[in-house]
Amino acid sequence: MSEAYVHGYEPRENERLLDQAETLVGLLHNDTAYAAGSVVLEAGCGVGAQTVTLAQRSPGARFTSVDVSAESLAEAKRKADAAGLINVQFQQADIFALPFAPESFDHVFVCFLLEHLPRPVEALVILKRLLRPGGTMTVIEGDHGSTYFHPDSDAAHQAIQCLVKLQKMAGGNALIGRQLYPLMVEAGLERVHVSPRMMYVDSSRPDLVEGLIKKTFTAMIEGVRESAIEAGITDPETFDAGVRDLYRTAEADGVFCYTFFKGVGEKSRRS
Amino acid sequence: MSEAYVHGYEPRENERLLDQAETLVGLLHNDTAYAAGSVVLEAGCGVGAQTVTLAQRSPGARFTSVDVSAESLAEAKRKADAAGLINVQFQQADIFALPFAPESFDHVFVCFLLEHLPRPVEALVILKRLLRPGGTMTVIEGDHGSTYFHPDSDAAHQAIQCLVKLQKMAGGNALIGRQLYPLMVEAGLERVHVSPRMMYVDSSRPDLVEGLIKKTFTAMIEGVRESAIEAGITDPETFDAGVRDLYRTAEADGVFCYTFFKGVGEKSRRS
Repeated sequence: MSEAYVHGYEPRENERLLDQAETLVGLLHNDTAYAAGSVVLEAGCGVGAQTVTLAQRSPGARFTSVDVSAESLAEAKRKADAAGLINVQFQQADIFALPFAPESFDHVFVCFLLEHLPRPVEALVILKRLLRPGGTMTVIEGDHGSTYFHPDSDAAHQAIQCLVKLQKMAGGNALIGRQLYPLMVEAGLERVHVSPRMMYVDSSRPDLVEGLIKKTFTAMIEGVRESAIEAGITDPETFDAGVRDLYRTAEADGVFCYTFFKGVGEKSRRS
Repeated sequence: MSEAYVHGYEPRENERLLDQAETLVGLLHNDTAYAAGSVVLEAGCGVGAQTVTLAQRSPGARFTSVDVSAESLAEAKRKADAAGLINVQFQQADIFALPFAPESFDHVFVCFLLEHLPRPVEALVILKRLLRPGGTMTVIEGDHGSTYFHPDSDAAHQAIQCLVKLQKMAGGNALIGRQLYPLMVEAGLERVHVSPRMMYVDSSRPDLVEGLIKKTFTAMIEGVRESAIEAGITDPETFDAGVRDLYRTAEADGVFCYTFFKGVGEKSRRS
């Protein structure tokens, strides 16, 4: 997993991930709770944006949260300590070389990870091996192609496409959300159920206007400005016009839509 | 309202509207029920695709369902009679010249109508005049720009754009769903609440694959083939490739997403 992480590791990016997690927490996590005593692997925990929520919602479960970046893990650990979590241990590891025995987890949880991997099905197969028979795999991913808004704007769509292209150049797939069902089925998971988690934002919800349109999505697009210009896939004027039009959707008559996808599948009890 | 109805009035089109209503009925209507004794206007009932559901879910309410097309109304009436409805009366009228006194309805219901009108806010203002103070207006519209799928396909998006362009040429707006909130607010409705109704379809739901992807959406796109070619906005090869790619999303590893929007607003009690 040597590809560059498209969003970078800057402090502002960390803040964005936190804002994201706080705004989206109910939408993404309200139906995930693990039984007391269960052993859960969080693969690709990053700076711990989901870890605190996950562990707080299942206080009786024991979590092992792994990430490839030592720096991200340190931040995740600080956050878990600040929240007083005692049911999470952190470990640095590459998803494709995890130091765990087969069938050693009851559940695996993966959030915003597959979008960055060149071989997502292979990752799922590797993670599935770590599940006990009958254990569950939960996968959450976004899909930047699910973004639409009012007023509509070609420049804004082009700015979003910059991130989609950069992510593709880095070996990832920013449109992976819609593909969770076929990917999880291809990985051999059973009873796969995928549900969309659509964020619809209009000005009757100023918290979401601020938290989702401005601080999460548009901040994420702005974050790839220099890389996109350097890669020659946009120019400053076009990109900046697109970002302006994204902020425009946060005004009183604006509307913004984005959809996450959450899939849950089981490892066969017969295997 | 002299613009051509973009979908036409052919028998196959009527069948499509019925298939659509049967598949989507829960998603669109599960939270609409009118109190016994209330008087409801259904504006633009067409062939009655929503009328039977609407009237059956509120058996104590009295509905007046109007449409500009006598032929559509006759079909709607046949359907209502077949369902044994006794709480609906049908009336032929133009939305912009409705023969009703101000404040004569408790509720107004509008479904798949605004998308065909060049002046949707004007239509809402006219309909609002017919509401008593405190009465509610419910509006449901689709948004063809909300369509995305796997495998992704430029040709398929271009085929969808043919319908979007034709609808625009006819004075309508196929992307109106996302705009319901600002339109209803602009029309002076209060306490406007809009919620998305997203159809997510993968092969774990063969009924939706058949009912939504094939019989509803792709059939609707196929329905504008001749008009789009005649209008010079596509050629047969490109269009047919797009339609093939839409059907492709109905295969085992395919996924299809489309979102309707439903808005409810109130007429001020002070007016």
